[in-house]
Amino acid sequence: MCGIFAYLNHLTPKSRREVLEILIQGLQRLEYRGYDSAGVGVDGKDGSIAVFKEKGKVKVLEDAIFSGSNDLDMDEILSTHIGISHTRWATHGVPAPVNAHPQRSDEDQQFICVHNGIITNYKDIKQFLVAKGHRFESETDTEIIAKLTLHIYNDHPNHTFQQIVEMVIQQLEGAFALCFKSKHFPNQCVAARRGSPLLVAIKTKEHLATDHIPIMYSKVRQPPRNVPLIPRSESTAEFLPTGDTQEIEFFLASDASAVIEHTNRVIYLEDDDVAWIRDGMLTIHRLKRASMDESSTREVHTLMMEIQEIMKGSYSSFMQKEIFEQPESVVNTMRGRINFDTETVVLGGIKEFLPEIKRCRRLILIACGTSFHSAIATRQLLEELTELPVMIDLASDFLDRNTPIFRDDVCFFISQSGETADTLMALRYCKTRGALIVGITNTVGSSICRESHCGVHINAGPEIGVASTKAYTSQFISLVMFALVVSEDRLSMRPRRTEIIRGLKQLPELIKEVLKLDSRIEEIAKGLYQNKSMLVMGRGYNYATCLEGALKVKEITYMHSEGILAGELKHGPLALVDPGMPIILICTRDPTFVKCMNALQQVTAREGRPIIICNNGDPEPARFANELLEIPPTVDCLQGILTVIPLQLLSYHVAVMRGCNVDCPRNLAKSVTVE
Amino acid sequence: MCGIFAYLNHLTPKSRREVLEILIQGLQRLEYRGYDSAGVGVDGKDGSIAVFKEKGKVKVLEDAIFSGSNDLDMDEILSTHIGISHTRWATHGVPAPVNAHPQRSDEDQQFICVHNGIITNYKDIKQFLVAKGHRFESETDTEIIAKLTLHIYNDHPNHTFQQIVEMVIQQLEGAFALCFKSKHFPNQCVAARRGSPLLVAIKTKEHLATDHIPIMYSKVRQPPRNVPLIPRSESTAEFLPTGDTQEIEFFLASDASAVIEHTNRVIYLEDDDVAWIRDGMLTIHRLKRASMDESSTREVHTLMMEIQEIMKGSYSSFMQKEIFEQPESVVNTMRGRINFDTETVVLGGIKEFLPEIKRCRRLILIACGTSFHSAIATRQLLEELTELPVMIDLASDFLDRNTPIFRDDVCFFISQSGETADTLMALRYCKTRGALIVGITNTVGSSICRESHCGVHINAGPEIGVASTKAYTSQFISLVMFALVVSEDRLSMRPRRTEIIRGLKQLPELIKEVLKLDSRIEEIAKGLYQNKSMLVMGRGYNYATCLEGALKVKEITYMHSEGILAGELKHGPLALVDPGMPIILICTRDPTFVKCMNALQQVTAREGRPIIICNNGDPEPARFANELLEIPPTVDCLQGILTVIPLQLLSYHVAVMRGCNVDCPRNLAKSVTVE
Repeated sequence: MCGIFAYLNHLTPKSRREVLEILIQGLQRLEYRGYDSAGVGVDGKDGSIAVFKEKGKVKVLEDAIFSGSNDLDMDEILSTHIGISHTRWATHGVPAPVNAHPQRSDEDQQFICVHNGIITNYKDIKQFLVAKGHRFESETDTEIIAKLTLHIYNDHPNHTFQQIVEMVIQQLEGAFALCFKSKHFPNQCVAARRGSPLLVAIKTKEHLATDHIPIMYSKVRQPPRNVPLIPRSESTAEFLPTGDTQEIEFFLASDASAVIEHTNRVIYLEDDDVAWIRDGMLTIHRLKRASMDESSTREVHTLMMEIQEIMKGSYSSFMQKEIFEQPESVVNTMRGRINFDTETVVLGGIKEFLPEIKRCRRLILIACGTSFHSAIATRQLLEELTELPVMIDLASDFLDRNTPIFRDDVCFFISQSGETADTLMALRYCKTRGALIVGITNTVGSSICRESHCGVHINAGPEIGVASTKAYTSQFISLVMFALVVSEDRLSMRPRRTEIIRGLKQLPELIKEVLKLDSRIEEIAKGLYQNKSMLVMGRGYNYATCLEGALKVKEITYMHSEGILAGELKHGPLALVDPGMPIILICTRDPTFVKCMNALQQVTAREGRPIIICNNGDPEPARFANELLEIPPTVDCLQGILTVIPLQLLSYHVAVMRGCNVDCPRNLAKSVTVE
Repeated sequence: MCGIFAYLNHLTPKSRREVLEILIQGLQRLEYRGYDSAGVGVDGKDGSIAVFKEKGKVKVLEDAIFSGSNDLDMDEILSTHIGISHTRWATHGVPAPVNAHPQRSDEDQQFICVHNGIITNYKDIKQFLVAKGHRFESETDTEIIAKLTLHIYNDHPNHTFQQIVEMVIQQLEGAFALCFKSKHFPNQCVAARRGSPLLVAIKTKEHLATDHIPIMYSKVRQPPRNVPLIPRSESTAEFLPTGDTQEIEFFLASDASAVIEHTNRVIYLEDDDVAWIRDGMLTIHRLKRASMDESSTREVHTLMMEIQEIMKGSYSSFMQKEIFEQPESVVNTMRGRINFDTETVVLGGIKEFLPEIKRCRRLILIACGTSFHSAIATRQLLEELTELPVMIDLASDFLDRNTPIFRDDVCFFISQSGETADTLMALRYCKTRGALIVGITNTVGSSICRESHCGVHINAGPEIGVASTKAYTSQFISLVMFALVVSEDRLSMRPRRTEIIRGLKQLPELIKEVLKLDSRIEEIAKGLYQNKSMLVMGRGYNYATCLEGALKVKEITYMHSEGILAGELKHGPLALVDPGMPIILICTRDPTFVKCMNALQQVTAREGRPIIICNNGDPEPARFANELLEIPPTVDCLQGILTVIPLQLLSYHVAVMRGCNVDCPRNLAKSVTVE
């Protein structure tokens, strides 16, 4: 995730200082979306564009701009002006000014743009542009957008700004929300989105002429015979918000939290919309109309929310928001890596090291806390697809033991922040012993990222809640993708790989289905939240879910919960079972189903009253259930992604009912950067 | 452990049936000491000795004897008679009639004997006897005793029975309690002990002449000059218990539980005592007097206990008894394996496979429950001394994962009973894949024993309490000994090995010291037992203690306790810490001490009130302790044996206070022989 913010004041005079202050404030509202670097682009001297970019939080950028060390006239009054800005959460390229946005078309900064998302075909476009003589300076995928814009502008000098951007986005694959500024089109702004969110907010003194903004299509889908094809964007049917061209301000932002202090009138852009603002007018363009059912207008909504509310959306906490983001965050993890049409998987970050990885003697997965659970969750699949011994270790224990490590080991270090102290020290320990180091993090440019030989960014976007949720499912998927990549040329494994890739494709929809259990889970939480203890039992692919679910409950509800391998039940934990002990048992249709049913019967024979997580409509476990949570079936090795979500939701609801601070549980910090 | 029982009726006529019934009843009282096979030896026809031996419990033997399928006259009245019997817990040789006791000198059964203990030099003696023409039939160490007795008798036909046995035991190394019967010395019994328990009980109608039985020395320690050396056993100063030779019965038994229904007058033999009964007279002989402080008499004690009390000794449960047995059980585990003089370690059961083990690529330790914890406890030392990757796996999870196993893997299967279903199935899984199988069990002849290529018997003796205690410490030591054996020819590791061997030598004394904390721990339990939850924290070598201690509490107190790696504290469990949560923290002086202190400070900073287990007089952790348990320091890798004992005791006391059945916790069985 990144945050985009743009401000266009039409006939609304502001000093350059005021414009910059509005931009900075907008970025600060979006900082939860990313905060490793930030940048702004405004008009500079003599028709040029001035860009400021800094590594770090928005405050660093603010200090740099207002330190007075630049030669901009802060007090100059700009009657009409467009400024764009960006706060970044790195995916391609470490946090650094050169990788921050706006990215530029050339040294002259004819076009600049800000981007939220991932362009999956950026390497191809980059190759094309390099061949055409463009010189690249950053490691980002975004830079190709700025340079491609200039390239198209040079080829089509008479096109409008909107037409140029429309041509640009037709070349892009992946996800994006974009805002463009150009010295060739002063005071104009073009924005576009596909996959990533973007809205336009409007501030006027008077009422808008209409709340229904008509969409203009560049190509009529099915031109009626004998009717000349007149592109609608050539027409003059434009949107005049106030009926004249006086005093109007536009804000473009990734979400409403950045605009609500200015106005509550917003238009949510949809995928492939191109918004064009010039002369105080907003028009919305689309290439073609897909069907007659498609709405031909965009509505202006009136927001009634507080800022805090908007930041979290309709959620009461970031953790809840992040749980519900998982249908999108898992897509972001897979974006540009899995081609569902060809059923192939490419991990750019480890591609070069694949031959070495395939020659290794052993995989070792090292992590702490939730990240360690993602290693447990995927260990079996890694063993299956790589046919290698796979060891897993808690980083602190691994270090305490001075574990023997060899040159032909491949060691994985999994950490959301990429800064977890024990994990990082374990990385250095293995590196000095000559092992190949693979980092799995959510934070480009983090220490683990930098010190790894290669790695996978999970691209889950910033996670604010201390209890990790979406990072877990994205780590899980990243390790699954690794297993798929390593086994790519194994013919015997093709059916299994195909099955898993198809499972991954369906996953976002299945996660949405699981999230629908929310109110059912809230009901269950009401019966549970006053308990002192809880056990979460399962085995096989779901064992990690038990540990992770129990950890969530521990972390945010302070209830003593423990994940228990169902196979160990008779070796001790069964003694805890009685009618008063809350027990959650996971029993999905996989190779351990019969054994789980066995455990279930042991529990009920001792008068345990289990809450059972099983597959939709499965009658067998249902017979024994005190409460039932049915989730859709998927491939065995992916089921753990679906079974953990009810437990994330349960921990959330129990925490709320117990009056705990969900996002900042007592005694815990988001990232453990000390031993 | 095994159980010995002998009955000598002097001028007290009994039918042969009555004699056998007394013997069988005695064995049944001793069955808790071993129950894999049993045997008796009584007078047969025409001056011969009749021996019955069966595999299985004493009941099987009883049925076989009284089935009428033998030609003994059960109704014949024996005015004076000696019968000996034995119930076995195998150490050498699987449970089978041929390995059951009595063992015999030859087919003519001139001498038979029963034995409890382990003869460590039996191979040397066997070699000697084979060279002399003796033919062996069993796999036991005991058989050499019977054959050596005959051999000495043949060489010294004029020696008394007592003199012969005295010569025999001078040749024996190891531990033993022995009872002998011979056709050459009808109605006489000789018994001896060293290391293993043995008592003589006396039943008479009249009072005994004295309660102080003088000891007769074969050699005067410091013969006064010019005084002829007259062996005292040659003297006639014998013990006449009733003042005449009328009506007296003697019982010899491993403990008083077997005799209390007959008489409450007992003499406890001491190491190297030889007791000789003939003509209704008991004499006690020793080779020489070690010092003038040594008592020159054996007292006749009057027991005031009930049978049940005696079986458990002064303990309220077998579990408590087994906790307190650990100073002896760890000695039994090391007996015959570690030579503390030469500082060498030999494990007979794996000797032949050592070259193959040393060539392997990986060690894998697989187990369930407590046995799994012994793997965790010793993993670091195995990694250190073998320099091999050491994987540990819960058997059920290992099977669920279809874990890749290779021909150059060495797989350990650890199970007290040797019958744990998951562990056994994992063994078969690995065996079919060509790995070398090493069994670590407490039960000779168990399935894991039989199906292993090689192994180590932990020799802890039968464990009756469902919650494992002494088996854990013996498994721990067995794995330590394995690490010592594998690294024997590594010069660079010699100092470390020496340190560990010396640590092992001191261990029994240190365990005794830890057991002295019992009443202190009982006090702590009073403050704890009403709690719902408990956390046990530590790291490094003590991590296994945390898991094992928490499991004990779970198993027998039904309190929700959890072992927590202190290094993971900040990744979640710290949220549980508040003044109301009982926390036990282990913080001994080893390489993780500073990190443990760090965890301790985190806990106290959150107002946790920890019970701290630390080394004697260590001021640092003491400052933070709510309660303190100080244990003696030892080598880092052995410290876990000492730290687990306070937790065994704590779980015991809490269980008693909560009114739980300590030996038979709800829902659990001793041996989990189903999946």
